[in-house]
Amino acid sequence: MIEGKIGRMLFSRLKADEDLAEAIKKRAEKSGVKAGVIIAIGSLKSATLGYYREGEYKTIRLDGPLEIASCIGNVAVDENGDVVVHAHVVVTNERGEAFGGHLMKGSPVGATAELTIIEGLGPKLEKSLRRDDEA
Amino acid sequence: MIEGKIGRMLFSRLKADEDLAEAIKKRAEKSGVKAGVIIAIGSLKSATLGYYREGEYKTIRLDGPLEIASCIGNVAVDENGDVVVHAHVVVTNERGEAFGGHLMKGSPVGATAELTIIEGLGPKLEKSLRRDDEA
Amino acid sequence: MIEGKIGRMLFSRLKADEDLAEAIKKRAEKSGVKAGVIIAIGSLKSATLGYYREGEYKTIRLDGPLEIASCIGNVAVDENGDVVVHAHVVVTNERGEAFGGHLMKGSPVGATAELTIIEGLGPKLEKSLRRDDEA
Repeated sequence: MIEGKIGRMLFSRLKADEDLAEAIKKRAEKSGVKAGVIIAIGSLKSATLGYYREGEYKTIRLDGPLEIASCIGNVAVDENGDVVVHAHVVVTNERGEAFGGHLMKGSPVGATAELTIIEGLGPKLEKSLRRDDEA
Repeated sequence: MIEGKIGRMLFSRLKADEDLAEAIKKRAEKSGVKAGVIIAIGSLKSATLGYYREGEYKTIRLDGPLEIASCIGNVAVDENGDVVVHAHVVVTNERGEAFGGHLMKGSPVGATAELTIIEGLGPKLEKSLRRDDEA
Repeated sequence: MIEGKIGRMLFSRLKADEDLAEAIKKRAEKSGVKAGVIIAIGSLKSATLGYYREGEYKTIRLDGPLEIASCIGNVAVDENGDVVVHAHVVVTNERGEAFGGHLMKGSPVGATAELTIIEGLGPKLEKSLRRDDEA
Protein backbone atom coordinates (compact mmCIF):
# COMPACT_ATOMS: atom_id res chain seq x y z
CA MET A 1 0.00 0.00 0.00
CA ILE A 2 1.40 3.36 -1.06
CA GLU A 3 1.05 6.37 1.16
CA GLY A 4 1.11 10.11 0.76
CA LYS A 5 -0.05 13.19 2.55
CA ILE A 6 -3.50 14.67 2.36
CA GLY A 7 -3.65 17.87 0.37
CA ARG A 8 -6.53 20.22 -0.31
CA MET A 9 -10.27 19.74 -0.29
CA LEU A 10 -11.74 21.10 -3.51
CA PHE A 11 -15.38 21.68 -4.32
CA SER A 12 -17.31 22.58 -7.45
CA ARG A 13 -20.94 22.71 -8.43
CA LEU A 14 -21.19 21.29 -11.95
CA LYS A 15 -23.50 22.83 -14.51
CA ALA A 16 -26.45 21.33 -16.36
CA ASP A 17 -25.46 19.46 -19.52
CA GLU A 18 -21.79 19.13 -18.63
CA ASP A 19 -20.56 15.61 -19.23
CA LEU A 20 -19.96 14.28 -15.72
CA ALA A 21 -16.69 12.44 -16.46
CA GLU A 22 -15.34 15.33 -18.55
CA ALA A 23 -16.36 17.89 -15.95
CA ILE A 24 -14.49 16.04 -13.19
CA LYS A 25 -11.42 15.82 -15.43
CA LYS A 26 -11.52 19.53 -16.32
CA ARG A 27 -11.91 20.61 -12.70
CA ALA A 28 -9.01 18.45 -11.56
CA GLU A 29 -6.79 19.72 -14.40
CA LYS A 30 -7.62 23.36 -13.76
CA SER A 31 -6.78 22.96 -10.08
CA GLY A 32 -3.58 20.99 -10.63
CA VAL A 33 -4.75 17.87 -8.80
CA LYS A 34 -2.41 14.96 -9.53
CA ALA A 35 -3.93 12.38 -7.20
CA GLY A 36 -7.07 12.22 -5.13
CA VAL A 37 -10.40 10.70 -4.37
CA ILE A 38 -13.66 12.10 -5.65
CA ILE A 39 -17.16 12.12 -4.25
CA ALA A 40 -20.11 13.50 -6.19
CA ILE A 41 -23.89 13.59 -5.89
CA GLY A 42 -26.49 15.33 -8.02
CA SER A 43 -28.53 14.40 -11.04
CA LEU A 44 -28.04 13.24 -14.62
CA LYS A 45 -30.14 13.69 -17.76
CA SER A 46 -29.04 10.21 -18.86
CA ALA A 47 -26.23 7.83 -18.05
CA THR A 48 -23.67 5.76 -19.92
CA LEU A 49 -22.31 3.01 -17.73
CA GLY A 50 -19.57 0.49 -18.36
CA TYR A 51 -19.53 -3.16 -17.32
CA TYR A 52 -16.09 -4.72 -17.58
CA ARG A 53 -15.86 -8.18 -19.10
CA GLU A 54 -13.00 -9.96 -20.83
CA GLY A 55 -10.81 -6.89 -21.19
CA GLU A 56 -13.36 -4.39 -22.40
CA TYR A 57 -16.28 -2.31 -21.24
CA LYS A 58 -19.73 -3.27 -22.39
CA THR A 59 -21.88 -0.13 -22.53
CA ILE A 60 -25.19 0.28 -20.74
CA ARG A 61 -27.39 3.27 -21.65
CA LEU A 62 -29.98 4.59 -19.23
CA ASP A 63 -32.48 7.31 -19.94
CA GLY A 64 -33.15 9.89 -17.27
CA PRO A 65 -33.75 12.00 -15.41
CA LEU A 66 -31.68 10.12 -12.85
CA GLU A 67 -30.34 10.94 -9.42
CA ILE A 68 -26.61 10.39 -8.88
CA ALA A 69 -27.08 8.43 -5.67
CA SER A 70 -23.32 7.91 -5.54
CA CYS A 71 -20.28 8.73 -7.61
CA ILE A 72 -16.95 7.78 -6.09
CA GLY A 73 -13.52 7.13 -7.53
CA ASN A 74 -10.17 8.71 -8.05
CA VAL A 75 -8.24 11.09 -10.24
CA ALA A 76 -4.65 10.56 -11.34
CA VAL A 77 -2.33 11.84 -14.06
CA ASP A 78 -0.97 9.62 -16.81
CA GLU A 79 2.61 9.61 -18.12
CA ASN A 80 1.77 12.63 -20.32
CA GLY A 81 0.48 14.64 -17.40
CA ASP A 82 -3.16 14.31 -18.46
CA VAL A 83 -5.74 13.81 -15.76
CA VAL A 84 -7.45 10.43 -15.80
CA VAL A 85 -10.74 9.97 -13.95
CA HIS A 86 -11.76 6.53 -12.73
CA ALA A 87 -15.19 6.70 -11.15
CA HIS A 88 -18.13 4.40 -10.59
CA VAL A 89 -21.70 5.57 -10.16
CA VAL A 90 -25.01 4.49 -8.76
CA VAL A 91 -27.99 6.20 -10.36
CA THR A 92 -31.65 5.97 -9.45
CA ASN A 93 -34.89 6.52 -11.34
CA GLU A 94 -38.27 7.94 -10.37
CA ARG A 95 -39.24 4.69 -8.63
CA GLY A 96 -35.98 4.81 -6.66
CA GLU A 97 -34.60 1.77 -8.47
CA ALA A 98 -30.81 1.72 -8.57
CA PHE A 99 -28.46 0.97 -11.43
CA GLY A 100 -24.75 1.48 -11.72
CA GLY A 101 -21.34 0.71 -13.11
CA HIS A 102 -18.25 2.38 -14.48
CA LEU A 103 -18.84 6.06 -15.32
CA MET A 104 -18.36 6.63 -19.04
CA LYS A 105 -18.55 9.68 -21.25
CA GLY A 106 -22.11 10.34 -22.26
CA SER A 107 -23.60 11.14 -18.86
CA PRO A 108 -24.81 14.77 -18.97
CA VAL A 109 -25.46 16.49 -15.66
CA GLY A 110 -29.08 17.32 -14.84
CA ALA A 111 -29.91 20.39 -12.76
CA THR A 112 -26.53 20.23 -11.01
CA ALA A 113 -23.98 17.96 -9.39
CA GLU A 114 -21.71 18.66 -6.47
CA LEU A 115 -18.15 17.43 -6.74
CA THR A 116 -15.66 17.19 -3.90
CA ILE A 117 -12.06 16.14 -4.41
CA ILE A 118 -9.79 15.19 -1.52
CA GLU A 119 -6.27 15.58 -2.81
CA GLY A 120 -3.40 13.21 -2.13
CA LEU A 121 0.17 14.50 -2.25
CA GLY A 122 3.54 12.93 -2.88
CA PRO A 123 5.27 11.41 -5.90
CA LYS A 124 4.80 7.81 -4.75
CA LEU A 125 1.08 8.22 -4.23
CA GLU A 126 0.70 9.97 -7.56
CA LYS A 127 2.58 7.16 -9.30
CA SER A 128 0.65 4.44 -7.49
CA LEU A 129 -2.65 5.81 -8.70
CA ARG A 130 -1.29 5.48 -12.23
CA ARG A 131 0.02 1.97 -11.66
CA ASP A 132 0.68 0.20 -8.40
CA ASP A 133 3.09 -2.72 -8.44
CA GLU A 134 2.85 -3.40 -4.73
CA ALA A 135 0.53 -5.87 -3.08
CA MET B 1 -13.17 24.88 -8.41
CA ILE B 2 -12.84 26.28 -4.92
CA GLU B 3 -10.21 24.98 -2.56
CA GLY B 4 -9.63 24.89 1.16
CA LYS B 5 -7.63 22.98 3.69
CA ILE B 6 -8.60 19.67 5.19
CA GLY B 7 -9.67 19.93 8.80
CA ARG B 8 -10.66 17.26 11.27
CA MET B 9 -12.01 13.76 10.84
CA LEU B 10 -15.11 13.33 12.98
CA PHE B 11 -16.91 10.12 13.80
CA SER B 12 -20.19 9.24 15.48
CA ARG B 13 -22.26 6.13 15.89
CA LEU B 14 -25.90 7.15 15.44
CA LYS B 15 -28.62 5.70 17.60
CA ALA B 16 -31.65 3.63 16.67
CA ASP B 17 -34.67 5.74 15.65
CA GLU B 18 -32.71 8.94 15.08
CA ASP B 19 -33.70 10.54 11.81
CA LEU B 20 -30.64 10.07 9.62
CA ALA B 21 -30.66 13.54 8.01
CA GLU B 22 -31.42 15.27 11.32
CA ALA B 23 -28.75 13.27 13.13
CA ILE B 24 -26.09 14.28 10.61
CA LYS B 25 -27.15 17.92 10.94
CA LYS B 26 -27.06 17.82 14.76
CA ARG B 27 -23.64 16.19 14.89
CA ALA B 28 -22.17 18.71 12.46
CA GLU B 29 -23.70 21.63 14.40
CA LYS B 30 -22.50 20.37 17.77
CA SER B 31 -18.97 19.99 16.44
CA GLY B 32 -18.89 23.32 14.63
CA VAL B 33 -18.38 21.87 11.17
CA LYS B 34 -18.98 24.55 8.53
CA ALA B 35 -18.00 22.56 5.45
CA GLY B 36 -17.20 18.94 4.80
CA VAL B 37 -17.99 15.67 3.17
CA ILE B 38 -19.91 12.91 4.88
CA ILE B 39 -19.80 9.14 4.57
CA ALA B 40 -22.22 6.89 6.43
CA ILE B 41 -23.18 3.23 6.48
CA GLY B 42 -25.55 1.33 8.74
CA SER B 43 -29.22 0.47 8.63
CA LEU B 44 -32.61 2.19 8.43
CA LYS B 45 -36.04 1.21 9.68
CA SER B 46 -37.52 2.86 6.60
CA ALA B 47 -36.43 5.42 4.05
CA THR B 48 -37.80 8.59 2.51
CA LEU B 49 -36.03 9.37 -0.74
CA GLY B 50 -36.31 12.34 -3.02
CA TYR B 51 -36.24 12.34 -6.81
CA TYR B 52 -35.70 15.79 -8.30
CA ARG B 53 -37.86 16.78 -11.23
CA GLU B 54 -38.92 20.15 -12.53
CA GLY B 55 -37.79 22.11 -9.51
CA GLU B 56 -39.10 19.90 -6.75
CA TYR B 57 -38.51 16.59 -5.02
CA LYS B 58 -40.95 13.80 -5.62
CA THR B 59 -41.03 11.58 -2.55
CA ILE B 60 -40.40 7.84 -2.58
CA ARG B 61 -41.21 5.86 0.57
CA LEU B 62 -39.56 2.51 1.26
CA ASP B 63 -40.37 0.17 4.10
CA GLY B 64 -37.52 -1.52 5.91
CA PRO B 65 -35.52 -2.85 7.48
CA LEU B 66 -32.97 -1.59 4.98
CA GLU B 67 -29.19 -1.50 4.88
CA ILE B 68 -27.60 1.88 4.18
CA ALA B 69 -25.31 0.55 1.46
CA SER B 70 -24.06 4.08 0.89
CA CYS B 71 -24.73 7.56 2.18
CA ILE B 72 -22.46 10.28 0.84
CA GLY B 73 -22.78 14.01 0.56
CA ASN B 74 -21.76 17.23 2.17
CA VAL B 75 -22.52 19.59 5.02
CA ALA B 76 -22.46 23.36 4.75
CA VAL B 77 -23.83 26.32 6.68
CA ASP B 78 -26.42 28.67 5.23
CA GLU B 79 -26.42 32.46 5.52
CA ASN B 80 -27.96 32.17 9.00
CA GLY B 81 -25.25 29.85 10.23
CA ASP B 82 -27.52 26.79 10.20
CA VAL B 83 -26.04 23.52 9.04
CA VAL B 84 -27.47 22.18 5.80
CA VAL B 85 -27.02 18.53 4.91
CA HIS B 86 -27.09 17.42 1.29
CA ALA B 87 -26.75 13.66 1.08
CA HIS B 88 -27.80 10.89 -1.26
CA VAL B 89 -28.31 7.30 -0.19
CA VAL B 90 -28.41 3.80 -1.58
CA VAL B 91 -30.43 1.39 0.53
CA THR B 92 -30.89 -2.36 0.10
CA ASN B 93 -33.55 -4.83 1.15
CA GLU B 94 -33.44 -8.46 2.30
CA ARG B 95 -32.97 -9.67 -1.27
CA GLY B 96 -30.06 -7.25 -1.70
CA GLU B 97 -32.00 -5.12 -4.18
CA ALA B 98 -30.83 -1.51 -4.23
CA PHE B 99 -32.85 1.69 -4.25
CA GLY B 100 -31.74 5.24 -3.72
CA GLY B 101 -32.07 8.96 -4.12
CA HIS B 102 -31.86 12.20 -2.21
CA LEU B 103 -31.92 11.63 1.56
CA MET B 104 -35.01 13.24 3.08
CA LYS B 105 -36.33 13.56 6.58
CA GLY B 106 -38.29 10.48 7.51
CA SER B 107 -35.49 7.91 7.43
CA PRO B 108 -35.10 6.52 10.97
CA VAL B 109 -31.86 4.70 11.80
CA GLY B 110 -32.15 0.96 12.43
CA ALA B 111 -29.77 -0.73 14.86
CA THR B 112 -27.08 1.89 14.22
CA ALA B 113 -25.32 3.94 11.59
CA GLU B 114 -21.72 5.08 11.48
CA LEU B 115 -21.09 8.62 10.35
CA THR B 116 -17.74 10.06 9.35
CA ILE B 117 -17.26 13.71 8.44
CA ILE B 118 -14.10 14.97 6.76
CA GLU B 119 -14.00 18.69 7.43
CA GLY B 120 -13.00 21.34 4.95
CA LEU B 121 -11.61 24.65 6.17
CA GLY B 122 -11.43 28.13 4.78
CA PRO B 123 -13.97 30.87 4.08
CA LYS B 124 -13.96 30.33 0.32
CA LEU B 125 -14.64 26.63 0.61
CA GLU B 126 -17.36 27.23 3.16
CA LYS B 127 -19.00 29.78 0.89
CA SER B 128 -18.69 27.58 -2.19
CA LEU B 129 -20.54 24.76 -0.50
CA ARG B 130 -23.39 27.22 0.09
CA ARG B 131 -23.33 28.56 -3.44
CA ASP B 132 -20.59 28.28 -6.03
CA ASP B 133 -20.53 30.80 -8.83
CA GLU B 134 -17.42 29.42 -10.48
CA ALA B 135 -17.33 26.89 -13.26
CA MET C 1 -19.12 13.27 17.91
CA ILE C 2 -15.48 12.34 18.37
CA GLU C 3 -12.78 14.16 16.49
CA GLY C 4 -9.23 13.49 15.44
CA LYS C 5 -6.71 14.71 12.93
CA ILE C 6 -6.49 13.57 9.36
CA GLY C 7 -3.49 11.36 8.69
CA ARG C 8 -2.24 9.83 5.47
CA MET C 9 -3.94 8.96 2.23
CA LEU C 10 -3.13 5.38 1.28
CA PHE C 11 -3.79 3.65 -2.01
CA SER C 12 -3.56 0.10 -3.27
CA ARG C 13 -4.63 -1.77 -6.35
CA LEU C 14 -6.02 -5.11 -5.21
CA LYS C 15 -5.32 -8.28 -7.15
CA ALA C 16 -7.68 -10.67 -8.86
CA ASP C 17 -9.10 -13.35 -6.56
CA GLU C 18 -8.18 -11.55 -3.34
CA ASP C 19 -11.10 -11.56 -0.94
CA LEU C 20 -12.19 -7.91 -0.84
CA ALA C 21 -12.81 -7.68 2.92
CA GLU C 22 -9.61 -9.60 3.74
CA ALA C 23 -7.57 -7.52 1.31
CA ILE C 24 -8.71 -4.27 2.91
CA LYS C 25 -7.87 -5.65 6.36
CA LYS C 26 -4.40 -6.81 5.27
CA ARG C 27 -3.55 -3.50 3.63
CA ALA C 28 -4.63 -1.52 6.69
CA GLU C 29 -2.66 -3.83 9.02
CA LYS C 30 0.49 -3.69 6.93
CA SER C 31 0.36 0.11 6.87
CA GLY C 32 -0.43 0.52 10.56
CA VAL C 33 -3.77 2.24 10.04
CA LYS C 34 -5.73 2.31 13.31
CA ALA C 35 -8.69 4.40 12.16
CA GLY C 36 -9.90 5.64 8.83
CA VAL C 37 -12.47 5.67 6.10
CA ILE C 38 -12.22 3.52 3.00
CA ILE C 39 -13.39 4.02 -0.55
CA ALA C 40 -13.06 1.30 -3.18
CA ILE C 41 -14.22 0.67 -6.73
CA GLY C 42 -13.44 -2.16 -9.13
CA SER C 43 -14.98 -5.52 -9.88
CA LEU C 44 -15.87 -8.77 -8.13
CA LYS C 45 -16.11 -12.35 -9.38
CA SER C 46 -19.01 -12.87 -6.97
CA ALA C 47 -20.34 -11.21 -3.85
CA THR C 48 -21.41 -12.23 -0.38
CA LEU C 49 -23.58 -9.56 1.19
CA GLY C 50 -25.03 -9.33 4.64
CA TYR C 51 -28.45 -8.02 5.61
CA TYR C 52 -28.78 -7.30 9.32
CA ARG C 53 -31.93 -8.45 11.04
CA GLU C 54 -32.63 -9.28 14.66
CA GLY C 55 -29.01 -9.33 15.75
CA GLU C 56 -27.49 -11.33 12.93
CA TYR C 57 -26.54 -11.06 9.29
CA LYS C 58 -28.59 -12.96 6.78
CA THR C 59 -26.35 -13.86 3.83
CA ILE C 60 -27.09 -12.98 0.22
CA ARG C 61 -24.98 -14.62 -2.49
CA LEU C 62 -24.63 -13.02 -5.92
CA ASP C 63 -22.88 -14.54 -8.91
CA GLY C 64 -20.69 -12.32 -11.04
CA PRO C 65 -18.92 -10.82 -12.74
CA LEU C 66 -20.04 -7.69 -10.90
CA GLU C 67 -18.85 -4.12 -10.82
CA ILE C 68 -18.13 -2.65 -7.39
CA ALA C 69 -20.18 0.49 -8.01
CA SER C 70 -19.40 1.59 -4.45
CA CYS C 71 -17.60 0.28 -1.42
CA ILE C 72 -17.39 2.64 1.53
CA GLY C 73 -16.84 2.14 5.23
CA ASN C 74 -14.24 2.32 7.89
CA VAL C 75 -11.31 0.50 9.44
CA ALA C 76 -10.61 0.36 13.16
CA VAL C 77 -8.59 -1.78 15.54
CA ASP C 78 -10.19 -3.94 18.20
CA GLU C 79 -8.99 -4.31 21.80
CA ASN C 80 -6.41 -6.90 20.63
CA GLY C 81 -4.97 -4.55 18.03
CA ASP C 82 -6.50 -6.44 15.12
CA VAL C 83 -7.87 -4.42 12.25
CA VAL C 84 -11.63 -4.62 11.80
CA VAL C 85 -13.18 -3.62 8.49
CA HIS C 86 -16.77 -2.42 8.35
CA ALA C 87 -17.78 -1.75 4.78
CA HIS C 88 -20.94 -1.74 2.71
CA VAL C 89 -21.02 -2.31 -1.03
CA VAL C 90 -23.17 -1.68 -4.04
CA VAL C 91 -22.53 -4.10 -6.90
CA THR C 92 -23.98 -4.09 -10.40
CA ASN C 93 -24.51 -6.75 -13.05
CA GLU C 94 -24.31 -6.74 -16.84
CA ARG C 95 -27.70 -5.05 -17.10
CA GLY C 96 -26.52 -2.35 -14.68
CA GLU C 97 -28.93 -3.55 -11.97
CA ALA C 98 -27.71 -2.70 -8.48
CA PHE C 99 -27.60 -4.84 -5.35
CA GLY C 100 -25.88 -4.24 -2.07
CA GLY C 101 -25.45 -4.70 1.63
CA HIS C 102 -22.84 -5.39 4.26
CA LEU C 103 -19.56 -6.63 2.73
CA MET C 104 -18.82 -10.15 3.94
CA LYS C 105 -15.99 -12.57 3.34
CA GLY C 106 -16.55 -14.48 0.16
CA SER C 107 -16.33 -11.60 -2.32
CA PRO C 108 -13.32 -12.28 -4.59
CA VAL C 109 -11.93 -9.37 -6.58
CA GLY C 110 -12.38 -9.55 -10.37
CA ALA C 111 -9.76 -7.96 -12.65
CA THR C 112 -8.81 -5.44 -9.97
CA ALA C 113 -10.12 -3.08 -7.33
CA GLU C 114 -8.73 0.26 -6.24
CA LEU C 115 -8.68 0.96 -2.53
CA THR C 116 -8.12 4.34 -0.91
CA ILE C 117 -7.88 4.81 2.84
CA ILE C 118 -8.07 8.23 4.46
CA GLU C 119 -6.50 7.81 7.87
CA GLY C 120 -7.79 9.35 11.08
CA LEU C 121 -5.37 10.02 13.93
CA GLY C 122 -5.73 10.37 17.65
CA PRO C 123 -6.54 8.00 20.51
CA LYS C 124 -10.10 9.27 20.95
CA LEU C 125 -10.97 8.83 17.30
CA GLU C 126 -9.40 5.38 17.24
CA LYS C 127 -11.39 4.39 20.30
CA SER C 128 -14.63 5.84 18.98
CA LEU C 129 -14.42 3.77 15.84
CA ARG C 130 -14.23 0.71 18.09
CA ARG C 131 -17.09 1.83 20.31
CA ASP C 132 -18.61 5.26 20.65
CA ASP C 133 -20.51 6.04 23.82
CA GLU C 134 -21.30 9.63 22.84
CA ALA C 135 -24.39 10.84 21.09
